[in-house]
Amino acid sequence: MLSKLNVIEQCDKFPYPTKEPDLYTAQLKSFYKFHVEGCPATLGWMLESTVRIIQWPENWKIDHDDKTVILAGTSVTERSARMMEVLQAERTRESFKVLKGWRNELFPVYGPEHELLLSIERAGSPLFGIMIYGVHMNAYIVEDGKIKYWVGQRSQNKQTYPGLLDNSVGGGIATGGAPLDTMVQESVDEAAFPEELLRQSLRPVGAVTYFDVRDERAGGETGLLQPECIYVYDILLPSGVIPKPADDEAEKFHLMDVDVLQTKLSEGKFKTNCGLVIVDFLIRHGIVTPENEKDYIEILARLHRHLEFPTGRSW
Amino acid sequence: MLSKLNVIEQCDKFPYPTKEPDLYTAQLKSFYKFHVEGCPATLGWMLESTVRIIQWPENWKIDHDDKTVILAGTSVTERSARMMEVLQAERTRESFKVLKGWRNELFPVYGPEHELLLSIERAGSPLFGIMIYGVHMNAYIVEDGKIKYWVGQRSQNKQTYPGLLDNSVGGGIATGGAPLDTMVQESVDEAAFPEELLRQSLRPVGAVTYFDVRDERAGGETGLLQPECIYVYDILLPSGVIPKPADDEAEKFHLMDVDVLQTKLSEGKFKTNCGLVIVDFLIRHGIVTPENEKDYIEILARLHRHLEFPTGRSW
Repeated sequence: MLSKLNVIEQCDKFPYPTKEPDLYTAQLKSFYKFHVEGCPATLGWMLESTVRIIQWPENWKIDHDDKTVILAGTSVTERSARMMEVLQAERTRESFKVLKGWRNELFPVYGPEHELLLSIERAGSPLFGIMIYGVHMNAYIVEDGKIKYWVGQRSQNKQTYPGLLDNSVGGGIATGGAPLDTMVQESVDEAAFPEELLRQSLRPVGAVTYFDVRDERAGGETGLLQPECIYVYDILLPSGVIPKPADDEAEKFHLMDVDVLQTKLSEGKFKTNCGLVIVDFLIRHGIVTPENEKDYIEILARLHRHLEFPTGRSW
Repeated sequence: MLSKLNVIEQCDKFPYPTKEPDLYTAQLKSFYKFHVEGCPATLGWMLESTVRIIQWPENWKIDHDDKTVILAGTSVTERSARMMEVLQAERTRESFKVLKGWRNELFPVYGPEHELLLSIERAGSPLFGIMIYGVHMNAYIVEDGKIKYWVGQRSQNKQTYPGLLDNSVGGGIATGGAPLDTMVQESVDEAAFPEELLRQSLRPVGAVTYFDVRDERAGGETGLLQPECIYVYDILLPSGVIPKPADDEAEKFHLMDVDVLQTKLSEGKFKTNCGLVIVDFLIRHGIVTPENEKDYIEILARLHRHLEFPTGRSW
């Protein structure tokens, strides 16, 4: 049985400088820092094994003393093309298992002024350890004063976490996508919610941030770093509106009362990062309270981790 | 004009290990660590100047090489009595300005298993740099689909931050007080809300945590460390229920729409930690969004800081 804090720990795995300062510093020293030329901010952390395997073309400066990987380029287009070139070449060489999950989807990398610096193929993002962004939705109804939550069940055909439980809707934010627009589109595509209803009733309610270290369940190489931000939305559905599987994301939807939701959570039935969004939902709706949850403060801090990288915004 | 992030920065002042690792480490090295004998966890950070001024009786071990202050004692009662003895003596000696604000109110200090280790007079807590706890409430109504928020105005006679704007209700949690019970009691005492309504409709919605470094506005010595947790409650008031000043906390209450609320916030009219609770409220209610606030992710992380100390719970 997982506690709520265990649920968070399954996703937020990188050591905390506030808790294990020596371990944190030691791990940090082992990583290569990913930069783009002319920008002082570190954009991601790479494993030494990754840096050693990649056959770096010109325009990349690898410094094994400083442990830096610096991508040269004067524009977003140029940097993105050079990133694509490297990843395509490694995909052809079959050097990394994560690249077998090629998505043809571009993720943004932002600088310290929230400016877009480059785009990177989604499957390649954990090799560079950059921040990635998603949107997740909690769709719920209230019956006799009690909340019931629409849980998605992931298709058995999904590349990642097949068959596990999910939030009502969720997806990644590609380059150029604003959170709200992405959330609306995903909700139409995955659950057939009416767009007009979404535009009226979707409520942005925060974000969860955490620092994952990829394990077997994520597929591909283990130990890759993945700092992540999920923008969170709530929608209180009017009566008669129910989600319907509309693409190959969710196989079906289950309406669960909060006791069942918490049981499934403690049994580890949720995709790990969806569990974080559920815990955040249960706290904001007053179901998990300071009185019934001993780790309340620790959980809140770990749902909103302060990450070491610039965070995104370019819409 | 203060941005929302500036509002947070006025309260959450201690450097971040994730952002300024060298400054963080340097500051840390300058502090004395407060411990109780037999417990490995650091409970607070003390300034060297504080440690040098206090005339330590027996039962306290001061190590100037390790920079530790260790309180001996085998029970909560014994440790609390020894803490009171030190603070009373320094109060009599008039060694610290903060002790002029003696409150006759005991604050709890917790260990790593959430167990109560000792109590400390509220006014003395910043000398030991321990975590302190409060409860704040957002009381609001919805008119024509728009939120209006009941802002308290602090009495001109208050010891701290006289005349500034406040959340609807707020107060510290004394030893033995559970958050919900404390919130109910404060709301009855300060705003004359009916207890039955509170018990039915108060909703715990999270907590904000931050790390303050005391400045002139707080009164007393500057530079003292004050890590803090505020449990946050929302209440949607039924029509006809309004707050009424009931003791010497709030002089009056103002019903503000969210635009006015944000203007007052940007003008620095709020007591600093009340500003954090307002920003958290505006995010949870979808008024501050990823699209209209460039620092959205940074703000959320800093409203939920991961602190270096055990956090409390003993009810």
